[in-house]
Amino acid sequence: MTAARRVTIVDVARHAGVSTTAVSKVMRNAYGASPQMQEKVRAAIDELGYRPSAAARGLRGKTYTIGVMLPELRNLFFAEILDGVTEHLQGTGYQMLMAAGSNNRATEEQVTDALIDRSMDGVILIAPVSSRRRLETIARTVPTVVVGRHGQSAHYDTVADDDFTGAGLVVAHLAGLGHRRIAHIEHHETDPVRLREMPNALRADGYRHAMRAHGLEDHIDIASTTYTQDGGHLGARQLLARPHRPTAIFAGADIVAMGVLDALTEAGLSAPADISVAGYDGTAFAAFGPISLTTVDQAGHQMGGNAARLLLDRIADRTRPTAQVKLSPTLVPRRTTAALTDRTASR
Amino acid sequence: MTAARRVTIVDVARHAGVSTTAVSKVMRNAYGASPQMQEKVRAAIDELGYRPSAAARGLRGKTYTIGVMLPELRNLFFAEILDGVTEHLQGTGYQMLMAAGSNNRATEEQVTDALIDRSMDGVILIAPVSSRRRLETIARTVPTVVVGRHGQSAHYDTVADDDFTGAGLVVAHLAGLGHRRIAHIEHHETDPVRLREMPNALRADGYRHAMRAHGLEDHIDIASTTYTQDGGHLGARQLLARPHRPTAIFAGADIVAMGVLDALTEAGLSAPADISVAGYDGTAFAAFGPISLTTVDQAGHQMGGNAARLLLDRIADRTRPTAQVKLSPTLVPRRTTAALTDRTASR
Repeated sequence: MTAARRVTIVDVARHAGVSTTAVSKVMRNAYGASPQMQEKVRAAIDELGYRPSAAARGLRGKTYTIGVMLPELRNLFFAEILDGVTEHLQGTGYQMLMAAGSNNRATEEQVTDALIDRSMDGVILIAPVSSRRRLETIARTVPTVVVGRHGQSAHYDTVADDDFTGAGLVVAHLAGLGHRRIAHIEHHETDPVRLREMPNALRADGYRHAMRAHGLEDHIDIASTTYTQDGGHLGARQLLARPHRPTAIFAGADIVAMGVLDALTEAGLSAPADISVAGYDGTAFAAFGPISLTTVDQAGHQMGGNAARLLLDRIADRTRPTAQVKLSPTLVPRRTTAALTDRTASR
Repeated sequence: MTAARRVTIVDVARHAGVSTTAVSKVMRNAYGASPQMQEKVRAAIDELGYRPSAAARGLRGKTYTIGVMLPELRNLFFAEILDGVTEHLQGTGYQMLMAAGSNNRATEEQVTDALIDRSMDGVILIAPVSSRRRLETIARTVPTVVVGRHGQSAHYDTVADDDFTGAGLVVAHLAGLGHRRIAHIEHHETDPVRLREMPNALRADGYRHAMRAHGLEDHIDIASTTYTQDGGHLGARQLLARPHRPTAIFAGADIVAMGVLDALTEAGLSAPADISVAGYDGTAFAAFGPISLTTVDQAGHQMGGNAARLLLDRIADRTRPTAQVKLSPTLVPRRTTAALTDRTASR
């Protein structure tokens, strides 16, 4: 192959028969570039296919690039957030670039450093697991919006779903169907900041609160595992082994519910005939016919739109007070939950 | 909040009491920086938390950034490819940044331009829909690997799954179960280059070829829609309306199979009792218990690893001849396909 070299401003200047300063002026729409000069330079740019590098622009100030850190690539809910971001950025000249963390602090530090190194004008961190101190360090370096994690900071804006209320919607739905032994599978947490800020911890809190509000405090029963398919499988096995097993399981995330359904099948049970199962997240796969999982829609699209809006605001004015946007989730009842029958209650 | 400014090389030089040239020398490990100088500069870098921007490094040559364009964010198969890329880049100092296209040429042009503008050292384009001419223009500007699209170019390397063979595996599996009326749902194509290069077109070709090889040429029956859930729904409705409806449907992609299952449910039918259904892609959701879809695993992880390897090779040597890597798919039989019974055959 021909090893083509990137076209530079020097090539454009040579081709147009002008100085590089003149090319630069035309590109910046600066004063002092005559119409003839502009025409010559633009023709050379077109003919050579010259694209000024964002690196060069970055050194002069802005890169028009927004970095988004995702904890993982398989959670389809994040696609909703990203769509919201992309839609808001449309026509603004900003490009979104994504980098994958991996739900662990060391990788997250590497990835956020990499975004900062690459001169992003701003970053959106989705469900970060870093310490609050680390998040504030990032936010002091580059305008930052944290999505899907609660808590108020003087340095970054936050956009989150009201997870506490969302968990209450699930409990109310199941209690309304006559269930009393409603168990929950949570993602295990011990860190006090995470217990206040992480969506999973707020869902567990919301579950406990709603159980008490429905007079079901004696039936509060939590299996503490992880927000993974395996975690759901393990949690469900623990719950099925109880002397009085639950008639409904509220899994803290849709992927957890997939593991619950596997455990039910292994035990010769099915949802909702034997046990009602609900998830949380409103993922795309939860809507597929054979799954048809009752879940909570987190309005991811709106979360993304709000995050992008706050970030552009913050890039324009780094001194404005921080904002906390909390969005309202909605229950999406599907086929994995049903009214308590004599059959389910008697087990 | 305090509007913290990014720490620059000037700040480091001032803090260390040396020149910016000296700081730059230390950072580049260049000759002429004494041990004392190195110590002073490194202490200042640590104290101020200075991170040299990749933009600055970009102007000097490399940004150590690989740009990956994805056509969309909801296809979980792409996550496999990205994992393979990430794993291969581990420890190389390269960071992967992703940008979403959207299966349309105009957006894809914008996104690839944006990656080039941001001085990526190389780009990996996953299942691009651009014209071959456009792909070669990109590849002449920046080292490029095209993934999930066939065809040979003198300018870019390709990594693809052997879609033709993969489709044959599905037909052989269904024929082996006794099916003869095996229909296919394809993504409609008319462009001659796309008919030669796109995975969907090769799957349709592989289907036709395998049907003939099994003596089933009279039963070749293709519904031509799109690779979406709606496309699967529409295609299945067309196939179910045939005077002799198929006993097995091979959907060209797992997401298409989801639409097929919806259409079966609406018609009061189920898989595999009434009609066997197979997909293609090996997505994560195909493996979920309630879906349990027979599919073809494309070895996405290996595709990603190969793409990263070829790209780093190409960055190191832009003149080496291009390579075409073709990987072998494997059939993953699950519960949506079963032996033809009198019940299914008699319809």
